Amino acid sequence: MTKSFIHRDFILTNATAAKLYHEHAERLPIIDYHCHLDPRTVAENKRFESIAQIWLAGDHYKWRAERANGIGERYITGNASDWEKFEKWAQTVPYTFRNPLYHWTHLELKTAFGIDKLLNPLTAREIYDECNDKIKNDPKFTPQGLMEFYNVEVVCTTDDPADSLEYHIQLRDSAAKVRMLPTWRPDRAMAVENPTAFGLYVEKLSDVSGVRIATFADFVDALQRRHDFFASVGCRLSDHGFGEFFAEDYTDAEINAIFAKVLSGKALTDSEISKFKSAMLFIGACQDADAGWTQQFHFGVIRNNNSKMFSTIGADTGFDSIGEFLTAQKCAKFLDRLNSAGKLAKTILYNLNPNANEVVATMAGNFQDGITPGKIQFGAAWWFLDQKDGMQKQINALSVLGLLSRFVGMLTDSRSFLSYPRHEYFRRTLCDIVGRDIENGEIPYSGYEAERVNQMIEDICYNNARNYFNF
Amino acid sequence: MTKSFIHRDFILTNATAAKLYHEHAERLPIIDYHCHLDPRTVAENKRFESIAQIWLAGDHYKWRAERANGIGERYITGNASDWEKFEKWAQTVPYTFRNPLYHWTHLELKTAFGIDKLLNPLTAREIYDECNDKIKNDPKFTPQGLMEFYNVEVVCTTDDPADSLEYHIQLRDSAAKVRMLPTWRPDRAMAVENPTAFGLYVEKLSDVSGVRIATFADFVDALQRRHDFFASVGCRLSDHGFGEFFAEDYTDAEINAIFAKVLSGKALTDSEISKFKSAMLFIGACQDADAGWTQQFHFGVIRNNNSKMFSTIGADTGFDSIGEFLTAQKCAKFLDRLNSAGKLAKTILYNLNPNANEVVATMAGNFQDGITPGKIQFGAAWWFLDQKDGMQKQINALSVLGLLSRFVGMLTDSRSFLSYPRHEYFRRTLCDIVGRDIENGEIPYSGYEAERVNQMIEDICYNNARNYFNF
Amino acid sequence: MTKSFIHRDFILTNATAAKLYHEHAERLPIIDYHCHLDPRTVAENKRFESIAQIWLAGDHYKWRAERANGIGERYITGNASDWEKFEKWAQTVPYTFRNPLYHWTHLELKTAFGIDKLLNPLTAREIYDECNDKIKNDPKFTPQGLMEFYNVEVVCTTDDPADSLEYHIQLRDSAAKVRMLPTWRPDRAMAVENPTAFGLYVEKLSDVSGVRIATFADFVDALQRRHDFFASVGCRLSDHGFGEFFAEDYTDAEINAIFAKVLSGKALTDSEISKFKSAMLFIGACQDADAGWTQQFHFGVIRNNNSKMFSTIGADTGFDSIGEFLTAQKCAKFLDRLNSAGKLAKTILYNLNPNANEVVATMAGNFQDGITPGKIQFGAAWWFLDQKDGMQKQINALSVLGLLSRFVGMLTDSRSFLSYPRHEYFRRTLCDIVGRDIENGEIPYSGYEAERVNQMIEDICYNNARNYFNF
Repeated sequence: MTKSFIHRDFILTNATAAKLYHEHAERLPIIDYHCHLDPRTVAENKRFESIAQIWLAGDHYKWRAERANGIGERYITGNASDWEKFEKWAQTVPYTFRNPLYHWTHLELKTAFGIDKLLNPLTAREIYDECNDKIKNDPKFTPQGLMEFYNVEVVCTTDDPADSLEYHIQLRDSAAKVRMLPTWRPDRAMAVENPTAFGLYVEKLSDVSGVRIATFADFVDALQRRHDFFASVGCRLSDHGFGEFFAEDYTDAEINAIFAKVLSGKALTDSEISKFKSAMLFIGACQDADAGWTQQFHFGVIRNNNSKMFSTIGADTGFDSIGEFLTAQKCAKFLDRLNSAGKLAKTILYNLNPNANEVVATMAGNFQDGITPGKIQFGAAWWFLDQKDGMQKQINALSVLGLLSRFVGMLTDSRSFLSYPRHEYFRRTLCDIVGRDIENGEIPYSGYEAERVNQMIEDICYNNARNYFNF
Repeated sequence: MTKSFIHRDFILTNATAAKLYHEHAERLPIIDYHCHLDPRTVAENKRFESIAQIWLAGDHYKWRAERANGIGERYITGNASDWEKFEKWAQTVPYTFRNPLYHWTHLELKTAFGIDKLLNPLTAREIYDECNDKIKNDPKFTPQGLMEFYNVEVVCTTDDPADSLEYHIQLRDSAAKVRMLPTWRPDRAMAVENPTAFGLYVEKLSDVSGVRIATFADFVDALQRRHDFFASVGCRLSDHGFGEFFAEDYTDAEINAIFAKVLSGKALTDSEISKFKSAMLFIGACQDADAGWTQQFHFGVIRNNNSKMFSTIGADTGFDSIGEFLTAQKCAKFLDRLNSAGKLAKTILYNLNPNANEVVATMAGNFQDGITPGKIQFGAAWWFLDQKDGMQKQINALSVLGLLSRFVGMLTDSRSFLSYPRHEYFRRTLCDIVGRDIENGEIPYSGYEAERVNQMIEDICYNNARNYFNF
Repeated sequence: MTKSFIHRDFILTNATAAKLYHEHAERLPIIDYHCHLDPRTVAENKRFESIAQIWLAGDHYKWRAERANGIGERYITGNASDWEKFEKWAQTVPYTFRNPLYHWTHLELKTAFGIDKLLNPLTAREIYDECNDKIKNDPKFTPQGLMEFYNVEVVCTTDDPADSLEYHIQLRDSAAKVRMLPTWRPDRAMAVENPTAFGLYVEKLSDVSGVRIATFADFVDALQRRHDFFASVGCRLSDHGFGEFFAEDYTDAEINAIFAKVLSGKALTDSEISKFKSAMLFIGACQDADAGWTQQFHFGVIRNNNSKMFSTIGADTGFDSIGEFLTAQKCAKFLDRLNSAGKLAKTILYNLNPNANEVVATMAGNFQDGITPGKIQFGAAWWFLDQKDGMQKQINALSVLGLLSRFVGMLTDSRSFLSYPRHEYFRRTLCDIVGRDIENGEIPYSGYEAERVNQMIEDICYNNARNYFNF
């Protein structure tokens, strides 16, 4: 008799929102154009072993919540048993009220497992057993099975230029219904802070590209060959992650000299590093433009703040946070340089600090070309901002400073095969906002305009991404 | 039968808000104390030719939306016909849901033209024809006619110190009911980045002021004469626009030398430019204080980000955006220096980045003098922020960190004679906020306090500006 | 018949919020773990003389509002009579609609004096007389009386390391029911900008500690002895206030040399000052960690912006404001250094610029240790942000980026014995937020989860602070 927590109209606070969601958003396929899934896991499609494996391994959002709740590392990344880890997570869940984890947890239990119970210490054991039972017995609990179940049309992984893409190819050549495309993420080609590691990377790149790399021109040539190869495997996106944009002035001679210096194993100065990265960002962006790809920039993070934990359990374990940077001028300079050179690819700008929302939304407007609708995108709320409050702020800033109608919408950015309900969460949040405006009389909703509103919802949830990326 | 989109209670989501608006805000005159109207157009008062001329020429808000919607430049700033341009705008309008353009468009169609239809591709032709018909036949469609129609009591334009103000004088000496006052905007007197252009400007200033300018003292003297002249034509406001405040330390000797250097045609260093601008801002502020004027500072913009378009179609064409600056310390230093010298004029601080709202709201509080109520103003939401969300944030920050009651309220900052409904939009938004607080029991509304609330609304919409500026 | 302005469900906009507040928040004791009360006033517990003395003396929030309202300094900090000052404040109150002062004023009149009337020029005299009558005749109008009346269990004052703590000891050894503990605030031990004042302070510290201070090691030793002494009097907290964190690299030799230089009376360079403060912050933090204390950092302020008023009436008189700083990287470096050294105490980070909310909320998450729940706290909305909007933003950012459940809650940060209703205001605001989420279906509220929600409210209002600080 009691209504489920995750019920039909979850997040939908008005009747128009419910109508928009159920009639225009709910059933559309998912285009998950940016994620961190492991390609091999997708291609090999092995059955999952347990809820702990699917849910707790690698999820640094949950880990941060547990640490803040006083749960020891043994139960998070340590050698406690699966059940012990699950139990500690179940203890933490009721302490996450108002955090997106509370909603995500129950959306995932409901949609993937059909479990309506709320996770807490009293229900932990039965939910653990029920999930594991389903994982063992229900054939949908494979990577591809879950993707099909969630109506995922295509996913774009995140890949190094030197990667063989063998699993992308394997999947493509299989009978799988799911499409998985690579994304060009050349972090290591820019990581000249560490000359030794960079040197090894250049060797690896030389091997896979077949280009003997002696000069910077060789290096660019090798990257171009890999870029072409990525394109041949269906890649349509690049991605970069950093604190601030790099847009220093530099000359070819400087970059050649810097490249020679780092290859000789010598440490670079800060200025040299900055110039090199500025050159690499520019050249990479030109390659993307020439290929007709979309380039993505994820910026504003400060990483690995806890060096003690970094030395113990490594990167991407929950010790990153939102940084403070002044990126507007460098970003403008970078985009303008490309635009002036006729090499500005379709671009998505994702800021991590929500205070940059208005800067990014208005920056995008400076480089719209009057040809591709929404060519420069203010990207979806990302990482820490990937929750209702963050989504609302992004949607509001985009709405008042740009064209919401042209937004390519949501992505998971996830390592987990259970994260697809984040698209549902986004769609519900979007419909709630638009529905409320309609009910307040701020958007008309009859005749031509009603059709346009419905179409806008469908476009943001699916069509805009399909048209924009040309997968 | 269907309610109009722009109806009696548009934006007014509660009964108290509606009462406040209709009884205390709706019918008050407009004091538009900052705009960019062309004085000649006002003085000559020629009948407009078409809706395209009134609406689309010069409106870079619309242009940005069209570019983001994939409309080519030919239909925006190019040589397409009026009808073609209007048609493309009409195609774009239904893509602007949630953007202020959607509301402005229909407020303007409704109030100026009495058109209740929604603009979209199906209605474009009839609306185009109906507007043009009215523009041709209804006598109100002149600059002065529209200003009278919208109950505009006074407008303040934006003018260069070397300007003759001939059109202000012409209007003043005519039978026109509308008042138009100049605003002192000495951008060119500070633009020492370009020695050649600056030299030519100094020559022009010399001509119009009758002061032979050889030294910096002459330059200041010439400006003072123009300042006096502006005052004699009714000017009561200055205005400055920049990214960050300039508040460097400098000596008179340094400024004299810098002035001599730039006049000799030599390029200045960044430090010299910064010192010169710091001196000019300070000296100009003293002139304003001596004259009893109000000084305005519009800051936080980064301009002309798209150099390709800048070289093609010039400035103010839709390629500016919100910047990121740390202005608190420089702003404090600048205002403190004036305050210590007994030369702090009434001041309005307009930030373009909404993240500075709290800084600006609290900065104003540091220099209130206990004589002029609201002497230092946190200015109305400006440019990109001139929409419901931006207004709400400005009103909220001002409310909790200062005195909303003393706010001088809204301005259009516009180049268009159809922008006066922005005052209506602001008034509706203000009444909605205050009405909601009353209905939530957060503002009392009976007896003395009800009178005070009503008075506060009327003050913000009209009386505060009238009392503050001394036009 | 008319409902009081401050009524039973003030701020509580939904039935669940009212239930949460009245059943789980309203009656809990107050732990006011950070304030600026004068210890002597508490210990001596003299009856107050007048409402002007309690309310207007020292309250720079009210002063700022009055100055913005055009009230002259004579009626604020000058020699006008108590009644004149009260009258001017009463004139200003109706101009503070939407400012927290309007709510605080009437919460204080209602709770302390039982006065339901609204303060305005018409009621000023009767309210003045009624308050003064009660202050003279009702025995609760003493410092301790008010603290008992408001159910204050413990207050933590703010004290210099050289302070004798005699009034803390006097109160502890008396029959008073109220506990008052000191807080270690070593501002003067870091204030090396002024060598003369610093030298005098070192002498004073030498006297009270009994350590002859010749070297930096002596200085640290003297501070450690005072730290031990503070602990013996019940101190469990330190506090620091600044614009930005100090986290420079330095060597012991450098610090020794800087200390010798400043003691010799020589002015330090900016770099030396920064290094010295970096060292002091680190060493102080280690002392706090060793003692098991909690360290507090209040940052983001720019002080004494109006030098004319500073020279006239001194510091803390209403001329400070929210600053703009980029603190994320320095804060991360500082905390990481402590964490790596195993010396990271429990920490509360209070930002003054609300734009840092997301940075601070995510920064805290980097250093949670999996032992102490909520070890690193994102502190309550502070100073200018201590109002409904500021509290909501802090609570929302903490909720989505951390664990609201582990929040140690509110403090007054006040100099006034009438400020305890700020706890009530916070509790109402908190319950309103959580109640709304429940009514929207975003937090479940039955069975186990209802108990957890109730417990969360009680924890944030009281238990978390009690458990966290170990008073």
